[in-house]
Amino acid sequence: MIIDCHGHYTTAPADLTTFRDAQIAALKDPAQTPSRASLRIGDDQIRDSLEKAQLKLQRERGSDVTIFSPRASTMAHHIGTEATSLEWSQINNDLIARVVGLYPKNFVGVCMLPQSPGVPPAHSARELERCINELGFIGANLNPDPSGGHWNSPPLTDRHWYPLYEKLVELDVPAMVHVSSSCNPVFHATGAHYINADTTAFMQLIQGDLFKDFPTLRLIIPHGGGAVPYHWGRYRGLAQDMKKPPLEELLLKNVFFDTCVYHKPGIELLFKVVPVDNILFASEMVGAVRGVDPFTGRYYDDTKFYIDALPLSDDDRRKVLEGNARRVYRLDRTELYKRRG
Amino acid sequence: MIIDCHGHYTTAPADLTTFRDAQIAALKDPAQTPSRASLRIGDDQIRDSLEKAQLKLQRERGSDVTIFSPRASTMAHHIGTEATSLEWSQINNDLIARVVGLYPKNFVGVCMLPQSPGVPPAHSARELERCINELGFIGANLNPDPSGGHWNSPPLTDRHWYPLYEKLVELDVPAMVHVSSSCNPVFHATGAHYINADTTAFMQLIQGDLFKDFPTLRLIIPHGGGAVPYHWGRYRGLAQDMKKPPLEELLLKNVFFDTCVYHKPGIELLFKVVPVDNILFASEMVGAVRGVDPFTGRYYDDTKFYIDALPLSDDDRRKVLEGNARRVYRLDRTELYKRRG
Repeated sequence: MIIDCHGHYTTAPADLTTFRDAQIAALKDPAQTPSRASLRIGDDQIRDSLEKAQLKLQRERGSDVTIFSPRASTMAHHIGTEATSLEWSQINNDLIARVVGLYPKNFVGVCMLPQSPGVPPAHSARELERCINELGFIGANLNPDPSGGHWNSPPLTDRHWYPLYEKLVELDVPAMVHVSSSCNPVFHATGAHYINADTTAFMQLIQGDLFKDFPTLRLIIPHGGGAVPYHWGRYRGLAQDMKKPPLEELLLKNVFFDTCVYHKPGIELLFKVVPVDNILFASEMVGAVRGVDPFTGRYYDDTKFYIDALPLSDDDRRKVLEGNARRVYRLDRTELYKRRG
Repeated sequence: MIIDCHGHYTTAPADLTTFRDAQIAALKDPAQTPSRASLRIGDDQIRDSLEKAQLKLQRERGSDVTIFSPRASTMAHHIGTEATSLEWSQINNDLIARVVGLYPKNFVGVCMLPQSPGVPPAHSARELERCINELGFIGANLNPDPSGGHWNSPPLTDRHWYPLYEKLVELDVPAMVHVSSSCNPVFHATGAHYINADTTAFMQLIQGDLFKDFPTLRLIIPHGGGAVPYHWGRYRGLAQDMKKPPLEELLLKNVFFDTCVYHKPGIELLFKVVPVDNILFASEMVGAVRGVDPFTGRYYDDTKFYIDALPLSDDDRRKVLEGNARRVYRLDRTELYKRRG
């Protein structure tokens, strides 16, 4: 079984956007507040939104299951209040649960959290618990910058975040560190803010000592780890200058990278420097980059194409395409694996 | 001749720090304002600060000239007012001029600018002009985030920055896009803020159309271009999705990357994806990472060691080690080249 650990519901029916627009408009004009009941998305709409996109691409590219979460760019935790964010999270997470219900062999759910700038992360624990225990999800996306590019939350190693880590550990599910859109005009979302957040998070983890306090906490750094593998020597050297143990010992029991790197030389570098046990196959399709690379004739985000070309042993290939995700997300206990045997 | 295009005076005599500490203390207590005359650094102190560090490493590693600027992390444009920043810039730039005066065959100067949060970049034009015309410098370090990690200036493609570009173009000197220290605790300076700034700047340049307005402006993105070469496919794809021309056409007549990437796989990637005409040899020694890599027995920042191992043609090697810097910095008109013939 081939598992893509990073997919967002970027193709959700337009009714979802209509609801969100009304929700945002109501922040200034409460008369426009949409009722949740007004958002009626039929099963056929959901099927239609997936059949021509993620499901088609799974078939074409040869992956089986996508670990699927709400669209990252529209989490937009910076919009509105904690209540806004909670309602929007519940709606999106419920929609992911319906996707999984309709295609239980193709998708498994990961939730967004109802984070909000200045609100304690502990307030997200209840929605996390609901998604894991009631909706059968297997992880969460954790936004290290709910302000959307103003970066005014403490570092991820700060005790500010600990109540959420406690819940992740209690539920034994991992989090992917994933920002949302940027409301700061200096940062393009998918071209700068996402990548910067990945790099920033990894460096925070080098500076701190988070996994001493949470030895079983598992974090996935998406987009191939931001700039980290390219600057692997810099990070090894900085850790060494700080008298920290080697990265393998300091972080790599707890930190994992996905393969959302959209060209072969980048994927090759990732596999050269990061141990194979720490790499999880992912494409983020349908996502950040939608075109076809004229040099290869393949979609930029068809990352399996690059991985297929690597000279990996069968064992290593299985780890990257399935085994590591199975271990990091504890998939053996899920309905998905029980169903598939 | 081998030219390292990225070195900072990180080993400046301690008296400089003493002055800076007093200057900062005086922001709260004007009685502590230090006089510039109180800062007396002797030629022997300067010689001593370089002989055991940069000059020794030049000899050991086989480079000839370092394009040398004030220490990046202590530019700290976010501290104090415009007047603070101007005084500090003048002092640092004058010190670089003395370094060049003492070792005219080993160093050539690049200035820091007296930027300050919220102050128009135009106000830096005069100090830039002084450094180029009076001190014989060949370029400037341009900080895209004078706030030190709060990122509240407009993108580099905004007209906000145009007066400074006009001056750079008039003087025909390039700028290296280089942030300073971070006063935002989420961003480690050399492990996150520097790399994020490089990535952010490049993405801004993709989004904008700066070089249509300034066809002769030249910008160097340091630290191997941040995350950019590792995600070259993402950037090619994003530009394509935005209906922009290929990166070569859109940016690579004006944008250059240095080689401050501290391991061989990273350097190999850089040379695989970025055209050789756009790569300038640099090490940033003595800088961000000070240790020796246990895997190679060489200093992490001995980037020439990685480049020497690449299978480059003689022509390409000369471009990277000298020719590109000569062209981008217009070195042929400098005293350095006149002296060396």
